[in-house]
Amino acid sequence: MPNVVNIAQKFALFDELWSPRIAGELNDSYVKLAKIKGEFVWHHHENEDELFLVIKGRLLIQLRDQDLWLEEGEFLIIPRGVEHRPVAEEEVHILLLEPKSTQHTGNVVDEDLTQTEHKWV
Amino acid sequence: MPNVVNIAQKFALFDELWSPRIAGELNDSYVKLAKIKGEFVWHHHENEDELFLVIKGRLLIQLRDQDLWLEEGEFLIIPRGVEHRPVAEEEVHILLLEPKSTQHTGNVVDEDLTQTEHKWV
Repeated sequence: MPNVVNIAQKFALFDELWSPRIAGELNDSYVKLAKIKGEFVWHHHENEDELFLVIKGRLLIQLRDQDLWLEEGEFLIIPRGVEHRPVAEEEVHILLLEPKSTQHTGNVVDEDLTQTEHKWV
Repeated sequence: MPNVVNIAQKFALFDELWSPRIAGELNDSYVKLAKIKGEFVWHHHENEDELFLVIKGRLLIQLRDQDLWLEEGEFLIIPRGVEHRPVAEEEVHILLLEPKSTQHTGNVVDEDLTQTEHKWV
């Protein structure tokens, strides 16, 4: 049955950084929630576009040729193939939308960062 | 090029009710913004799941067997095939995510409500 998801309440349920949690699924995609702080790895997704929506805090998305800052209530869609690196000086809460096939580190496997499990929240 | 979308700023650019505007596209889906007030038509989408996220205000989504209230910062995914009717006592601003093929009135064509154009904001 459809159920209402309160985003803030979901964020209160986990603390782990760089560990996206699935909060919903529709069509071939997952809605994920992630807490991030620090620098992620440079990566791209071969066949998937990815949406970042900032719920809390301030996020820098670095592209190879520019820096894009996202404030609360702003979103950015990174087209497939575009190299990017999320950077959060302070902890940021983000909502991600991406195909179920997407691995969050994209073409890169990082020993510390790459998550292989799909965890729901 | 990727560009940052400020949701509140986009909502300031149009006033029309029940007329979703496209604010982004990723994979096979559109991100749409809509201002709604009053009762929509009962409908379902044959092959598409649909996400509603409340940006401002309070939204009632009626299902045939229950009423679901969404507050700001809450989302709901209506699976394909499930009949639903959005109702807004006061104006509500919502973000929708749905496949590009989705017609917002689903299986119903309503002379006043059904939009055939795809308008960007």
